[in-house]
Amino acid sequence: MPQTPDVMRRFEVPPRDTLPDDLQERIDAETERAGFTPTIFRAMSYRPSHFRAFFDYHDALVENTELEREEVEMIVVAVSGVNDCLYCVVAHGALLRIYASAPKLAEQLATNHRIADINDAHRAMLDVAVKLTEEPAKISEDDFDRLESHGFSRKAIWDIGSVAAFFNLSNRLVHLADIRPNDEFYTMGRD
Amino acid sequence: MPQTPDVMRRFEVPPRDTLPDDLQERIDAETERAGFTPTIFRAMSYRPSHFRAFFDYHDALVENTELEREEVEMIVVAVSGVNDCLYCVVAHGALLRIYASAPKLAEQLATNHRIADINDAHRAMLDVAVKLTEEPAKISEDDFDRLESHGFSRKAIWDIGSVAAFFNLSNRLVHLADIRPNDEFYTMGRD
Amino acid sequence: MPQTPDVMRRFEVPPRDTLPDDLQERIDAETERAGFTPTIFRAMSYRPSHFRAFFDYHDALVENTELEREEVEMIVVAVSGVNDCLYCVVAHGALLRIYASAPKLAEQLATNHRIADINDAHRAMLDVAVKLTEEPAKISEDDFDRLESHGFSRKAIWDIGSVAAFFNLSNRLVHLADIRPNDEFYTMGRD
Amino acid sequence: MPQTPDVMRRFEVPPRDTLPDDLQERIDAETERAGFTPTIFRAMSYRPSHFRAFFDYHDALVENTELEREEVEMIVVAVSGVNDCLYCVVAHGALLRIYASAPKLAEQLATNHRIADINDAHRAMLDVAVKLTEEPAKISEDDFDRLESHGFSRKAIWDIGSVAAFFNLSNRLVHLADIRPNDEFYTMGRD
Amino acid sequence: MPQTPDVMRRFEVPPRDTLPDDLQERIDAETERAGFTPTIFRAMSYRPSHFRAFFDYHDALVENTELEREEVEMIVVAVSGVNDCLYCVVAHGALLRIYASAPKLAEQLATNHRIADINDAHRAMLDVAVKLTEEPAKISEDDFDRLESHGFSRKAIWDIGSVAAFFNLSNRLVHLADIRPNDEFYTMGRD
Amino acid sequence: MPQTPDVMRRFEVPPRDTLPDDLQERIDAETERAGFTPTIFRAMSYRPSHFRAFFDYHDALVENTELEREEVEMIVVAVSGVNDCLYCVVAHGALLRIYASAPKLAEQLATNHRIADINDAHRAMLDVAVKLTEEPAKISEDDFDRLESHGFSRKAIWDIGSVAAFFNLSNRLVHLADIRPNDEFYTMGRD
Repeated sequence: MPQTPDVMRRFEVPPRDTLPDDLQERIDAETERAGFTPTIFRAMSYRPSHFRAFFDYHDALVENTELEREEVEMIVVAVSGVNDCLYCVVAHGALLRIYASAPKLAEQLATNHRIADINDAHRAMLDVAVKLTEEPAKISEDDFDRLESHGFSRKAIWDIGSVAAFFNLSNRLVHLADIRPNDEFYTMGRD
Repeated sequence: MPQTPDVMRRFEVPPRDTLPDDLQERIDAETERAGFTPTIFRAMSYRPSHFRAFFDYHDALVENTELEREEVEMIVVAVSGVNDCLYCVVAHGALLRIYASAPKLAEQLATNHRIADINDAHRAMLDVAVKLTEEPAKISEDDFDRLESHGFSRKAIWDIGSVAAFFNLSNRLVHLADIRPNDEFYTMGRD
Repeated sequence: MPQTPDVMRRFEVPPRDTLPDDLQERIDAETERAGFTPTIFRAMSYRPSHFRAFFDYHDALVENTELEREEVEMIVVAVSGVNDCLYCVVAHGALLRIYASAPKLAEQLATNHRIADINDAHRAMLDVAVKLTEEPAKISEDDFDRLESHGFSRKAIWDIGSVAAFFNLSNRLVHLADIRPNDEFYTMGRD
Repeated sequence: MPQTPDVMRRFEVPPRDTLPDDLQERIDAETERAGFTPTIFRAMSYRPSHFRAFFDYHDALVENTELEREEVEMIVVAVSGVNDCLYCVVAHGALLRIYASAPKLAEQLATNHRIADINDAHRAMLDVAVKLTEEPAKISEDDFDRLESHGFSRKAIWDIGSVAAFFNLSNRLVHLADIRPNDEFYTMGRD
Repeated sequence: MPQTPDVMRRFEVPPRDTLPDDLQERIDAETERAGFTPTIFRAMSYRPSHFRAFFDYHDALVENTELEREEVEMIVVAVSGVNDCLYCVVAHGALLRIYASAPKLAEQLATNHRIADINDAHRAMLDVAVKLTEEPAKISEDDFDRLESHGFSRKAIWDIGSVAAFFNLSNRLVHLADIRPNDEFYTMGRD
Repeated sequence: MPQTPDVMRRFEVPPRDTLPDDLQERIDAETERAGFTPTIFRAMSYRPSHFRAFFDYHDALVENTELEREEVEMIVVAVSGVNDCLYCVVAHGALLRIYASAPKLAEQLATNHRIADINDAHRAMLDVAVKLTEEPAKISEDDFDRLESHGFSRKAIWDIGSVAAFFNLSNRLVHLADIRPNDEFYTMGRD
């Protein structure tokens, strides 16, 4: 029998069956897909209106994008490493290992993206995502020129920046609520 | 005849009539409400799916909340000041002046919230919002204790943190795209 | 009848008529010129010998200079924005709006000079002023070369650096004493 | 025969006999007092109006003050150490050794004032001077309370802050012009 | 057949059989113990005299200490996380999982030790180790008092600080040479 | 009769005659060489196993190296200045003055190596040593290219980085224990 996961430490988690139907449906769908309920879905149900907007934004970022899914997860892990976000490093680290078929990439990107085993285009992509995280006011046309020289379109740059920006929101919610990654994420995709 | 506002400098602004109907409707409603089209609505229309999620999240933060609207705008201006975000400082500065009936508060919060003319509860609220912006990994139970001692409920703390987190997204999109505040915002609510 | 302005919060303001004659004369002249007494003159009268040297230095910087007055105020606002100095952002923001006939420039420079609507020479000028504020030990001949390539003479560079340096003094006195800008400054030059 | 000292590296030093009479007189008086001409007097003569205001301010800070001269020099050396200012660390280090009869104090304060061999009142004084240098916007009533608990009057706090603020100006001029300390300062007061 | 591991990227790795006998013996012993040759032993053989001192110091830190081995590894992973050191996060993360029988602890400590599942004494221990890493000049008697209140002796504090200090050396050598963790370390101790 | 020097303030100094023979011999040899016992030898004797590894490493760095001894001391002083380490600034400042026959160099390097009177190769060497101290994760091939363009071999770069890394350990031990430089070091090599 699965243990109740440790969801978050600073807010009470509403019981699943007290939630609006659309939240229950999304939670059930995610549970079926992953084989367990990623804690972020239980945590965000604290405010149903936030749950909906948060996951709609997330879904838009991974579904309606110029980026490959593995590129999205690369950005997530690099940004979350800079922001010291445990949930995102561990959970999206697992997704990155799976989508990129790269079992060592999560640790590399979470620790120091500059020396990760990635190509130059991806290094430029992550340099800009990290700059937007650390020194957003210093983004300039030079950053756009560099990304365009590696073949990223303006639309792709919007998508890179939007993923980085969204996880600057997400990382902070996780820190606020002290949301915990499921145990499963630590080991997924390692072989 | 109103001039076309300067919307954003790093991405092309899609013409209004090429946009999906729901975006056109929202833009028209905002234009009617404000008397001009706040540029953020034109800018976010670059990616309609992002537009929808972004404004749904924003609407949830101001409509479904334990906070007064002026408290929301106080957080926005303080966070955006820390992140050096021109659009948000100017546009939400205007909203803050109006909602708080406080013509000097925007400059005070954007420059240094520590000395603003606000009460101790609001100073605690802004200290936490700024900490979540600058050093999110250091948020601790002590911050919750301090806010609760000023009467904020756990749910209100979630809302404070969520507004701060959302504008850490928003500030970064503005920096990426170099979105410009409408001229009107500079002077609104100053008398 | 004008209200007594809120001058400073951490030191007592000496009554005008207890001050040495030369201070009274300067205060009266400034009051006549502005239509109100800028609080900085009342605050600095706390130490008459500091008052004299402070305003002599200031006068030298604006009167005996290779820079246009609007350039001086641009440097003041950018530096004071970096140092989060409310008095200087608000009071010199007003002067900048007036001298530069640019109602939006103060917010742009106080928030993020990198994207302000200024020419390349002024951007180089402000980059160096901000660098001298944030990382003074890293100023190098490269900074001089860049300014000279935009037509600034060595003497003009001395003046740029001196304005930046002086407001690094001034911003800190304001923070120490918690000096408050007059209400009038918030709205001057906005039309 | 004394060598011409190395005054500054980024601006030309005006010949002494081209200077206004009052500057020549001050330079001669300083030369007589020290036995050599401290380079700062030659450097500041680049702009005579700045020379006058700069040294008037300096004189006010050391002559018209609640602080002992050795306290003034302690603040100068600690602040200049934080700002990495070679001229001020070396020249005022020499003054500090002499005024405080403390041959090891300059290195201690320039390197890490927290462990210097000074009393608790002076440690509090330097903590505030360094805070005003590094994080001026965070100065608060708590800092005043701490200084007052060690017996500093409000007027003395003004003086502490003013010395710290002035050397934030001075350190930056030195960095800009690359002003060099006289060789004599390195060894003065060491026995 | 085992692949030659990727040892380091910025210096040539000397062939094992060109090394002095004592280095070969140590490398062989480590290989036998681990089942593979941890790359750090091959990397450090670039300078045999450094190899000997480095591992002697390391051995002293783990053999002659007031700390449990798992406490040593906790400090290593927290410090290396702060310093963004891939080799140390991955290799010592593996050792930590094994010595502490705690499969999730490495990610917690490398990402944000403040929320790791550890007791208060260990949190105090890591707070001081991280402070010694980030702001070493601010270590004070207060830090000693806090550690002593949790039962750490002076000798144990020396050992905590020495492990932190040694990995501030080690992390920098790894960054310099771009030393890579063996693949085995990524997965060791995860079940 | 020589006074007992002030060795360290946070740990007890073991009496010399309670130490293992090899430590006594090393201490005696150093005392004979210098004419006094540098306090670091007494401080490190707190843990004999650390004493041995620490000085073996140090000896390897100065004896088995591509660098001149004065280059080693230049790196030590610049790194220790960045880390605000009193013992190392003062004691190695003295060694630097002697080995480089440069009585002003210690203050220059401890305060701001960028403007020290050194050649371009040494400036590049110190830029990399300081970068490895402040931002070790950003070291890249560009830093190697720059050093190689000044004639440093790969082996010399290893040695530069190793000295910088070792003093990042050493500076932190000094801060932890509050180790004090001997009075003699303040004045050695000044004529």
